[in-house]
Amino acid sequence: MTSKIDQASVKACVFDVFGTVVDWRGSIIAEGQSYWRAKGIDIDWAAFADGWRGGYRPAMNKVRTGELPWTNLDALHRMQLEPLLQQFNIKLSPEDTDHLNRVWHRLHAWPDSSKGLTRLKTRYVISPLSNGNVALLTNMGKFAGLPWDCVLGAEIFRHYKPDPEVYLGAAAILGLQPSEVMMCAAHGGDLQAAGKLGLRTAYIYRPLERGPGRTVERADTSTFDVAVESFEELAAALAV
Amino acid sequence: MTSKIDQASVKACVFDVFGTVVDWRGSIIAEGQSYWRAKGIDIDWAAFADGWRGGYRPAMNKVRTGELPWTNLDALHRMQLEPLLQQFNIKLSPEDTDHLNRVWHRLHAWPDSSKGLTRLKTRYVISPLSNGNVALLTNMGKFAGLPWDCVLGAEIFRHYKPDPEVYLGAAAILGLQPSEVMMCAAHGGDLQAAGKLGLRTAYIYRPLERGPGRTVERADTSTFDVAVESFEELAAALAV
Repeated sequence: MTSKIDQASVKACVFDVFGTVVDWRGSIIAEGQSYWRAKGIDIDWAAFADGWRGGYRPAMNKVRTGELPWTNLDALHRMQLEPLLQQFNIKLSPEDTDHLNRVWHRLHAWPDSSKGLTRLKTRYVISPLSNGNVALLTNMGKFAGLPWDCVLGAEIFRHYKPDPEVYLGAAAILGLQPSEVMMCAAHGGDLQAAGKLGLRTAYIYRPLERGPGRTVERADTSTFDVAVESFEELAAALAV
Repeated sequence: MTSKIDQASVKACVFDVFGTVVDWRGSIIAEGQSYWRAKGIDIDWAAFADGWRGGYRPAMNKVRTGELPWTNLDALHRMQLEPLLQQFNIKLSPEDTDHLNRVWHRLHAWPDSSKGLTRLKTRYVISPLSNGNVALLTNMGKFAGLPWDCVLGAEIFRHYKPDPEVYLGAAAILGLQPSEVMMCAAHGGDLQAAGKLGLRTAYIYRPLERGPGRTVERADTSTFDVAVESFEELAAALAV
């Protein structure tokens, strides 16, 4: 754990969600191997999860560059799902397709997330600051037991990270200066974008985001205010 | 208690806040008579609270009619506070004025609010749907122990109730049909506006909103789906 932060100046901690708070890959695989296998769909769910997530950044970039008008993440996921179902030769009813699309509302937290957030909540405003939409994040919060104080989703700002509007918009809507907000994420690019705009930055190392056999390399943390390996360590670094 | 609702069709309960969830008048009086009296300001805090709240609707209407550009409730409260301080002959530093303005972030809940919300949360998405701004509602939620799943404040829609954009915007951002959302409020006008747009409506009778000596008349509840006298009764009416 490294920390070079004056905790008293931080009022809110905002969190990247996919990969940082929840294990999107493990959750999709788990639901595939239980619920969907019981419905007769027996595929390589790890490959399916990776394929779906692989379309995430290109789809958002179409919105960021103006190629697509504003489209929320549920709708982007749905657009990617159609060709993926064809590719894996899966036939689903429209109702089942909708239900599968909403697996992103049913992601499980990493084992330390809820406990660490509960500690952080005693001293700081805690909120997701995610490219997910508000409904997705709200349903996920209930499903995974995440005690958010409020929910900041991309459509509130009508921009996707790493657009500056998201980070600066979060500080503004919370009534805070950028320097009073700490961006917490497992991804260096997210933190670099936030840090450039004056937000504080906390890196949480999540080596298993891409699966157990494919350990994610640790980012260069020298430019971040805090670097930890769990949300419990984050709470300790922020003196709660 | 009256109820004519199919509970299974309701997915989210959204709440008016000032008067419905929290006792704005009693809270301002209480802070005045303790914190501010200790600082030497000894005025009729009930009259002060009533005067401040009296400017609420006219100020919002200036935004609703376009006379003012979008202005959040913290800023509207601050605009009303300046002449009020003069009227009551109170001199405050800028820091103290800011602190007093944020008394709206420190309102106490009615005794049944937190308990009822905690029950409702087990089955429904619960959120404020208030003319307050997100920071105000988030800070108030922490202060008063309100277990919101997410926080929907007016600036997300850039409209004030009873503009339709707020009610329809809430359903849309929650990913729901209007008929799946129940508007819960102590004020008939709020519910009538919501009901016209297809939302479900729950009336909570709060006779003490204007103070103990001035019992608020009960609205005609015949057109509302549910009418109750507390949040615990609301939970019971909604089968939790």
